[in-house]
Amino acid sequence: MIILALNCGSSSVKYQLFDWERKEVVAKGMVERVIIGDSFIMHEVPGRETYRKEYECPDHQVAIDLIIRTVVDAEQGVLGDINEISAVGHRVVHGGEMFTRSVLIDEKVLDAVKDVQHLAPLHNPPNIAGIEAAQAVLPHVPHVAIFDTAFHQTMPEHAYLYPLPYEWYEKYGVRRYGFHGTSHLYVSKRAAVLIGKKPSESNIITMHIGNGVSHCAIKGGVSVDTSMGLTPLEGAVMGTRCGDIDPAIPAFMMQKENLSAKEIDSILNKKSGVLGVTGRFTDRRDVIENAANGDHRCKVALDIEAYRLRKYIGTYMAVLGRLDAVVFTAGVGEMGWPIREKTIEGLEGIGIKLDRERNKGAMTRKRESLITTDDSPIKVFVIPTDEELVFTEDVVAILNGTYTDHMNFDYSFARPDFVRK
Amino acid sequence: MIILALNCGSSSVKYQLFDWERKEVVAKGMVERVIIGDSFIMHEVPGRETYRKEYECPDHQVAIDLIIRTVVDAEQGVLGDINEISAVGHRVVHGGEMFTRSVLIDEKVLDAVKDVQHLAPLHNPPNIAGIEAAQAVLPHVPHVAIFDTAFHQTMPEHAYLYPLPYEWYEKYGVRRYGFHGTSHLYVSKRAAVLIGKKPSESNIITMHIGNGVSHCAIKGGVSVDTSMGLTPLEGAVMGTRCGDIDPAIPAFMMQKENLSAKEIDSILNKKSGVLGVTGRFTDRRDVIENAANGDHRCKVALDIEAYRLRKYIGTYMAVLGRLDAVVFTAGVGEMGWPIREKTIEGLEGIGIKLDRERNKGAMTRKRESLITTDDSPIKVFVIPTDEELVFTEDVVAILNGTYTDHMNFDYSFARPDFVRK
Repeated sequence: MIILALNCGSSSVKYQLFDWERKEVVAKGMVERVIIGDSFIMHEVPGRETYRKEYECPDHQVAIDLIIRTVVDAEQGVLGDINEISAVGHRVVHGGEMFTRSVLIDEKVLDAVKDVQHLAPLHNPPNIAGIEAAQAVLPHVPHVAIFDTAFHQTMPEHAYLYPLPYEWYEKYGVRRYGFHGTSHLYVSKRAAVLIGKKPSESNIITMHIGNGVSHCAIKGGVSVDTSMGLTPLEGAVMGTRCGDIDPAIPAFMMQKENLSAKEIDSILNKKSGVLGVTGRFTDRRDVIENAANGDHRCKVALDIEAYRLRKYIGTYMAVLGRLDAVVFTAGVGEMGWPIREKTIEGLEGIGIKLDRERNKGAMTRKRESLITTDDSPIKVFVIPTDEELVFTEDVVAILNGTYTDHMNFDYSFARPDFVRK
Repeated sequence: MIILALNCGSSSVKYQLFDWERKEVVAKGMVERVIIGDSFIMHEVPGRETYRKEYECPDHQVAIDLIIRTVVDAEQGVLGDINEISAVGHRVVHGGEMFTRSVLIDEKVLDAVKDVQHLAPLHNPPNIAGIEAAQAVLPHVPHVAIFDTAFHQTMPEHAYLYPLPYEWYEKYGVRRYGFHGTSHLYVSKRAAVLIGKKPSESNIITMHIGNGVSHCAIKGGVSVDTSMGLTPLEGAVMGTRCGDIDPAIPAFMMQKENLSAKEIDSILNKKSGVLGVTGRFTDRRDVIENAANGDHRCKVALDIEAYRLRKYIGTYMAVLGRLDAVVFTAGVGEMGWPIREKTIEGLEGIGIKLDRERNKGAMTRKRESLITTDDSPIKVFVIPTDEELVFTEDVVAILNGTYTDHMNFDYSFARPDFVRK
């Protein structure tokens, strides 16, 4: 059984083909620069060289057609026939309050996703375009939606409700939703395995630090709070997003520079964060290198990022009351040892004892590593995330009728004997 | 030596006369509804009944004239002559980056305060009006400015700089400043006395919960972080202010409801917070009463407030690395035991053991109380704040030439033998 996982962004489509019986990725890749022009596909098959081909994709339909053609291509492909694909799992960023788990997509589900697209105007429309395009190419297989927000629907009201006019919640759905749900799900279940506890008995903080950055407080296996909010702008510092700031600043700056609501939103999302402070970089490797060479603003950008990560560890420690483990994951979380070191050094007083050498050694996206000392009361792990595996398992379980929800379903990776391939 | 402390708000002027030799407040009071009409003075003298008089004050000059006339009045007054006033201390909300301590006001200082009034357009203009009015009535005595922001100027760059375009900091001074400095100063020095340590050796979190709410992480006697930011809107939930929210929300709601920058700013400052959630109340006593009677939104408002206070305790615990004590102060902090209980119950795992009975017993604005158990690793105190005493001591020390700054100056209340009158 081959499962196709699709992740449609505004100008990109990521895909992965997974062979369920062999428990292996058979191909994965990405079409980049969709709509904006000069688009191309990068197609990876284990054991082969990465294949790249320029191909104009003016919309998501063309991009998905290109992906299908590539995976069944005589030379580059891995499938003999498109009908070998049994089902498709679609990442959907915003599920609003409607979706608390993954679901089979039917007309009602698609309408509900469209209903909340005003909450994620950059993300849901391409997700929807991707679903419709894939349904056109693969009309006879089940399509499943996996939501970024679903994992966080367990948050209590006092964590998700903002201290804002209550009508804004009632009329427009203004509340905390949170994102990166499948990543928080995956790494928190892995962390529970690594500390030898059931998810239902473990309290874990997960820190997903990639292009977007979000943190999650997970109590007894369920999300009780997360740093992203109504949108993915809130929380930690990101490459180009500001994260937490004084909420008076948008209106203050609009008046200072005569900006529209759209313009300020664009600056906070695209010109702030690490880019705003350094003035030049979003890639933390550049920031680390230039900070080491004496660039003051790069040094401050690193200090700000680590300082704010540290603050969230404290915040969620108080939320959880008792903490078993902290997990770093995603690009920067897995690779950026200097940022991890800055974040957790000096926290012995609250139970986290960094092992500097272990931390420096944890620089691969493939291995799970402990980066605290053996006697550290709270353990800190680096765990490579695997959102596509969550997509795939949800799809298969829905096909098999064994799926319940992310709290109760028996994921393969939540078992002690799980081996990642 | 009589010191007059003045605190001019947009529509009120608070005052206090302090007899330095006798270490006693001789009179205090407030003119309310200045400019807006139906103004009146409330004048309190220890041992007498409170005196109230309606008097139209179309501006701060008239209000300050009224105060002076009242304190020298044959019947209501406490001074024989206006010349008994030796100096005036003025609260100034925003001192920008220029002022790191209290200063004698001269033309240059006044110009500098005017230069930063764009950062506090609601607060600095009445402060300036108050200074000019008081100088007109008392031209021959020294006037001293005590800044809300000065205490926080010790924050490191990674704590005060926002992850926003760096030019906003350079051009407009967009950074974290923090407020309530004199209150955080006073209660943190008192807490150090109560735990028997020098301020320079103690790590303390102070939670000022009044009309405005702000928290401060104080390491070795100096502010290293605080929850209010560029403006007093950031941080905790307040009576009508939202505190921390997704920074995308202002632009989102402006587009939904076609609001201007000024309108959204006004809603976030005046219609949000506890008022926004409950739809009816800002006074926590009303909220507590209605929550007890089953009003769901009142219950959630309390839960949100306490939950966010708890989060800040965790945040600043991570910032400080090691924590000696937490202090609750100001109206709600001193009186609102149910909110304190909700905030710190269940934090035994991170070193805070609430003593329920002690906490319920701490309901006076006059006594300092310990509200944790004797074996709690971290102590929590309720300490009535006394900003006017800080004003007065700064003024006297500046007159005497003994003032240095808030870190090194030997405040009377920072001594073990201090007795509050």
